[in-house]
Amino acid sequence: MRGTSTKSGSRASLAEVADRAGVSISTVSRIVNGIVGRASAETVARVRQAVDELGYRPDRIGRAMRQRQSNVVALLAPNLANPAMSTIAASTEEALRRVGHVMVLCDTHDRADLQDEYLAAMAAQLVRSVIFLGAVASPALRAASEAGEVFLFVNRRNPHDERAPFVGIDNRGAGAAVAAHFLANGHAPLAVIHSDHSSSAVRDRTYGFIDVLTKAGIAPEMLMRLSAPGDDHLDIGYQAAAAIVAAPQRPRAVLCTSDLIAYGAHRLLTEAGLAVPDDVVLVGIDGNPINPWLAPWLSSVVIPYEDYGPVIVDSLERIWAGEDPGERLLPYAFG
Amino acid sequence: MRGTSTKSGSRASLAEVADRAGVSISTVSRIVNGIVGRASAETVARVRQAVDELGYRPDRIGRAMRQRQSNVVALLAPNLANPAMSTIAASTEEALRRVGHVMVLCDTHDRADLQDEYLAAMAAQLVRSVIFLGAVASPALRAASEAGEVFLFVNRRNPHDERAPFVGIDNRGAGAAVAAHFLANGHAPLAVIHSDHSSSAVRDRTYGFIDVLTKAGIAPEMLMRLSAPGDDHLDIGYQAAAAIVAAPQRPRAVLCTSDLIAYGAHRLLTEAGLAVPDDVVLVGIDGNPINPWLAPWLSSVVIPYEDYGPVIVDSLERIWAGEDPGERLLPYAFG
Repeated sequence: MRGTSTKSGSRASLAEVADRAGVSISTVSRIVNGIVGRASAETVARVRQAVDELGYRPDRIGRAMRQRQSNVVALLAPNLANPAMSTIAASTEEALRRVGHVMVLCDTHDRADLQDEYLAAMAAQLVRSVIFLGAVASPALRAASEAGEVFLFVNRRNPHDERAPFVGIDNRGAGAAVAAHFLANGHAPLAVIHSDHSSSAVRDRTYGFIDVLTKAGIAPEMLMRLSAPGDDHLDIGYQAAAAIVAAPQRPRAVLCTSDLIAYGAHRLLTEAGLAVPDDVVLVGIDGNPINPWLAPWLSSVVIPYEDYGPVIVDSLERIWAGEDPGERLLPYAFG
Repeated sequence: MRGTSTKSGSRASLAEVADRAGVSISTVSRIVNGIVGRASAETVARVRQAVDELGYRPDRIGRAMRQRQSNVVALLAPNLANPAMSTIAASTEEALRRVGHVMVLCDTHDRADLQDEYLAAMAAQLVRSVIFLGAVASPALRAASEAGEVFLFVNRRNPHDERAPFVGIDNRGAGAAVAAHFLANGHAPLAVIHSDHSSSAVRDRTYGFIDVLTKAGIAPEMLMRLSAPGDDHLDIGYQAAAAIVAAPQRPRAVLCTSDLIAYGAHRLLTEAGLAVPDDVVLVGIDGNPINPWLAPWLSSVVIPYEDYGPVIVDSLERIWAGEDPGERLLPYAFG
């Protein structure tokens, strides 16, 4: 309860504290929630002084104290039928168990309304932390982020605050590695098939890919950017690949921002009589263990999803210790 | 606390109650745990009388009372990287949430030691119920089953008590349906590739298949039964399929007791220069949604894993009401 006044009946708001301390509401909220990693010592001191002077007593501190007694952590995942998601879920569960916690698993189906429903349900359960595996923008996540609630984001960054604690890979680097590989092999023209760009992972993979090609002097007409509506990556790949078949200058090599997109693209290309990789090279991102068995035609950037659990738990423990775990990037492998 | 004495200091054991009532320890334990569905009214009355006379006061009743206050249900699953398992997990989580419960998920990796570790951990958490999705035989599960603890078993029956509450499909019927399909198409010789036979699902699928063929007069030498060691279905399929390639009379059609086994078998057959289904027909069981995309050569018995959740929760609610939910078989689809 450091920095809080014992005066009763106080009604000072977070905004008044922020105003008095000369910082943003978000900064105040982080500091009163124990996350001081990003703030300077002076800022922290200033905020604590303002809290004391104004007698600010957030409900949140009491709630955080109660939450710290819980050993339940919630994992909100977008699509457990995706093997990457279920592998991360299993790895996280095991790592949490090793530190005496249990994991509650919720499938948001990539829907903002379900994500918000789960977020409210988990808050009511007083879980110790919520992990967003593939967060989508949603009203409740925005409100909680603006109020300074601290969550951990995996794979995709917090769509409402990209500086929030993050575990994933260097997605820009992964896209760039595939572009460099295509250039080294003399493949041209090139294409990228991506899913919803509001995900930081998808956006960074696509930008990393295009950035390398642009800097290498690849002409815009030699680089197709393809997508399709919806959340189903198989269907996105299938729909978007039609433009590859129809292109006057058919792309020789294609980055797909997920393995599932590559599976969908492969099906359409095969139906159109094109051979993978002889006619069109497909490269995915994920490294699904099923690939050597069912998709030997696919190269993929391998992400060590089975290693995520310990890194996720380490980040949570830093949050629980009042630190800012920042971003933790795991190594990927390609080629 | 019905049927228990209020005498203090009592040390009567479950075995003494069973002896006095003339029934098994397991029967006594079920009845004092509130599961009376299978016992006759006389048996229940006899056990309750013995409990009263001997002043038996199981710790378990107190524990069960505490457990009833918990809204946490544990799901112990064997391999979340298998899409069938993660689909059931997601469906169960959603159905539990709708009745105000949260699901804790544990991946046993099909290992008896991990299953026992989780079982102990969940007991310590005082979860309301434990669901075994693909149980394996293990010392703690055996001990708990013999003590009359009531769990719900999904896909595979309790290896220590096959009459325990169960949700799944008619596995014998599924195997029989594939056999009838092969006979109707005049396929011969035939084969089955199965994984570990200690799973009731695998055993029943295999027996149902063989039973139909035997009754149809198929000679034993026209029916290969193949398997391979280990828990990895992909590898089992791959290893076992070598015998198909090497057979003097090569099987024309093969039942694989899971889709993953079929993927492994397909890889070996393809490497051996055989075409699926032109040279060898493969039929799996699962109906993985990825099949039309990556394995269009595969027919599969479709199991409605996404519908399991509500049936699982209905069975749990019957258990919580002191009833025996028995077995609940969901429909499968083939052909």
